[in-house]
Amino acid sequence: MNPTTVKTARGYNFSAGPGTLPEDVLIELRDELPVYESIGSSVIEISHRSATYTDIAESARHRLRKLLGLNEEWHILFLQGGASMQFYQIPYNFLTPQDSADYLVTGTWSAKSVKEAKRVGGVNEAASSKDKNFSYIPDPSAWDINEQAVYTHYTSNNTVAGTQFHEEPDVPSTLICDASSDFLSRYMDLDRYGLIYAGAQKNIGPAGVTVVLVKDSFLQTRNPDLATMLDYGVHAEKLFNTPPVFAVYMVEKVLRWLEGKGGIDGIKGVNQEKADRLYNRIDASDFYRGTVEKGSRSFMNVCFRLANESLEPVFIQEAAEAGLLALKGHRSVGGMRASIYNACPIQAVDALVAFMDDFEQKNG
Amino acid sequence: MNPTTVKTARGYNFSAGPGTLPEDVLIELRDELPVYESIGSSVIEISHRSATYTDIAESARHRLRKLLGLNEEWHILFLQGGASMQFYQIPYNFLTPQDSADYLVTGTWSAKSVKEAKRVGGVNEAASSKDKNFSYIPDPSAWDINEQAVYTHYTSNNTVAGTQFHEEPDVPSTLICDASSDFLSRYMDLDRYGLIYAGAQKNIGPAGVTVVLVKDSFLQTRNPDLATMLDYGVHAEKLFNTPPVFAVYMVEKVLRWLEGKGGIDGIKGVNQEKADRLYNRIDASDFYRGTVEKGSRSFMNVCFRLANESLEPVFIQEAAEAGLLALKGHRSVGGMRASIYNACPIQAVDALVAFMDDFEQKNG
Repeated sequence: MNPTTVKTARGYNFSAGPGTLPEDVLIELRDELPVYESIGSSVIEISHRSATYTDIAESARHRLRKLLGLNEEWHILFLQGGASMQFYQIPYNFLTPQDSADYLVTGTWSAKSVKEAKRVGGVNEAASSKDKNFSYIPDPSAWDINEQAVYTHYTSNNTVAGTQFHEEPDVPSTLICDASSDFLSRYMDLDRYGLIYAGAQKNIGPAGVTVVLVKDSFLQTRNPDLATMLDYGVHAEKLFNTPPVFAVYMVEKVLRWLEGKGGIDGIKGVNQEKADRLYNRIDASDFYRGTVEKGSRSFMNVCFRLANESLEPVFIQEAAEAGLLALKGHRSVGGMRASIYNACPIQAVDALVAFMDDFEQKNG
Repeated sequence: MNPTTVKTARGYNFSAGPGTLPEDVLIELRDELPVYESIGSSVIEISHRSATYTDIAESARHRLRKLLGLNEEWHILFLQGGASMQFYQIPYNFLTPQDSADYLVTGTWSAKSVKEAKRVGGVNEAASSKDKNFSYIPDPSAWDINEQAVYTHYTSNNTVAGTQFHEEPDVPSTLICDASSDFLSRYMDLDRYGLIYAGAQKNIGPAGVTVVLVKDSFLQTRNPDLATMLDYGVHAEKLFNTPPVFAVYMVEKVLRWLEGKGGIDGIKGVNQEKADRLYNRIDASDFYRGTVEKGSRSFMNVCFRLANESLEPVFIQEAAEAGLLALKGHRSVGGMRASIYNACPIQAVDALVAFMDDFEQKNG
C-alpha cells in the first residue's frame, strides 16, 4: 500500500469517542496482521494465558506505572463494561445503606453515576451544575461536603458539556475519579485517590476496555461477598477471565506512542497549546462563542456555537467535506464540539482554526 | 506484502480461546486499516452512534437472525464481560431467593455459574459429572429435575473437558444455554430457550463481546429495579452505552464469512467431518487415547493423551515446530487438546492427523 495514499485518505478526526488513534499505532496494527512476529497467528487469536499476551499486558501495566508514577500500592485492572459499569461497581464495592458517599454532579455522566449509587447506599450530591445545563464547574466554596463520606466521586472532564476540573477537588474523603475523557492528558495527584477509572476509547485506545487503578489500602475496605466479576479484589489478585485482548493490545501500543511523545510531560504542553489555539480563535470574534464558563473550559472537548445558529449544519457539513470530521456537538448542547484528545495532532487544530477563519470570512 | 509469505507464516491454530479466526477476515481487517472505505478513519475511531457503526451492528444482527433462524421475538445484544459476567447477570435478572433454578453441572464453567446463582436464589444441581472430572454428560434418566424451576441452565459444550451435549436437554422449564464454545457450529431448537449466550472468542470473533440472545417473553419475566448495566431490558431497548466496537465489527465479518461457507448447513457438516477424522485417528491405535466417554465427545474441543504420558511435552513441542499451534491441554485434564472451531480449516485437522501418524511411527 502506498503510504501517501493512506495519509491523504485520513481526515482529522474530532470524534468525542470512540476517538481518534495515533496513525502510527494503526499502521503498526496493520503490519501485525494476519501474523504477529513469529507466533504464527495474530495477537487476537491467542490464549490470554499465553506468554505473548502476558507480555503485552505486563508491558501496558509497566508503561502506565511509569507514565503516571503509580507505585506498587496501585493495582492496574483491565476490565469491561465501560464507565457505565463502574457507576454501579464502585458503590457495589464501597458503599452500603449505612454509609454515604459524596458526588460532584457536573454532567451527564456523573448524574448517571449518582443514579446507580443510590441503588446501593446513601448519596450526598455535594455540588451540581445542573441548573445551567452543566456549563460550569461549581465553585468549591459552595460545596456541601460531608466530612464522613466514604468517598467523593467526580468526573474530571465532562465530554458532553465541555468542562473540566483544573484542580483536584480538595475534600476530606478519598477521591474516586471518572477520568475517561482526560486520562493521561496530564498528571493526577495520586495521594488523594482511592480509585481512578477510564474507558479507553477517548485518550488511550479503542472501546472495549476500562482501565481501573485502585489503591490496595482502599481496595481492602470493600464490602464482603461480592459477585465474582464485580469484585475488584478478584481482578486485582489474578487474571480471572478472558480479558478484551485486542483492546489491551492497542492500549499498550498507545502507551508506547505516548512515551515517544515525551510522556505526560510532553503531551500536556501540546494539549494546552491545542486548547489555547482553538479557544483563542473562538474568542477572536463574535461570529463564534464558547458554550461554557471560561474558567471551566475543557482542554479535551471544545464546545462552541455560531452567533447565527442556523449556519451550524453548514459549518459541520463543509468541515467534513474539508476532512475535519465528527464536529457535531452533543444534542444536549447543540452546535459544534471538537474533541482534541492526546492523539489529535496540533495540525488538526490548526486546520480547524484555518477553516473557521475561512468560514467566518465567507459567512460573517 | 507477499501473500505467499503471509500464508507460510501462519500456522494451524488449535487454541481453545481466544481461538483462530478465518484468515480472510484478518486480511479484510488489515486492508481496512488505517482507513475504512471513504470515512477518513478506521472503524475503531468512530462514534458508536455513527451511521457506519450502526450499519455494521445492524448487519451483524441481520446475519445472525438469518443464520440461526431467529424471529423478531428474539433480542440480539452485544454485551461485555464474557460468559463470566453472564453467570451472575442471569440469576440477577431471573432468579429470586423464593425461586429455584436447575443447573446441569458438566464442567468448570457450569460449576462457576452455579456459584454465582447461589448468591441470588435457589439452585438445584439437577445433574453433575464432577465425580469423573467432567468426562461425560450425565444420562438424562438420572437427572433430578425440578418441575417448578424458573429456568434450566446448561453449557452446551465444555471447552476444558471436551464434552458436548448432542441433544438439547429435554426439561420442562425454559432453557438457558452457555453456548460460548459451540455457538453457530450447529442449529439450536430455539423454541426451548429463553436466553442463549456466547463469548465471541471461540466461534464467532475476538474476545471482548458476548452475544446474548433473549426471547422477549422471557425477558419480561425479569426482576424489577436492576442496576442499569446489568438489566437485559435496558440493552434490548436501546444502545445504552459504548459497545465494544472492534469486536462487533469483527463478528460481522465472521458472520459474512460463515454465510460464504454455506451458513450453519455448510459448516456443521465440515465440523462433523473434522471431528470424525480426528477421533478416528485417536481411536486407530493404543498409542493415543481420548479422555472422555465416546458418546459425550465434543466436536469442538478434542482432548486426548498419549499412552506414554511422558512423551506429551515432546508431542506438543514438535507439533508447534511443525506449525500446529496451541495443542497443550488444560491443566485439569493434561495431555493435548485440539480446538477445531468453525474457523479451523479441515486442512488443519488433516495436518494434525498426519503429524500424529508420524509421531507414532517415530515413538510408538
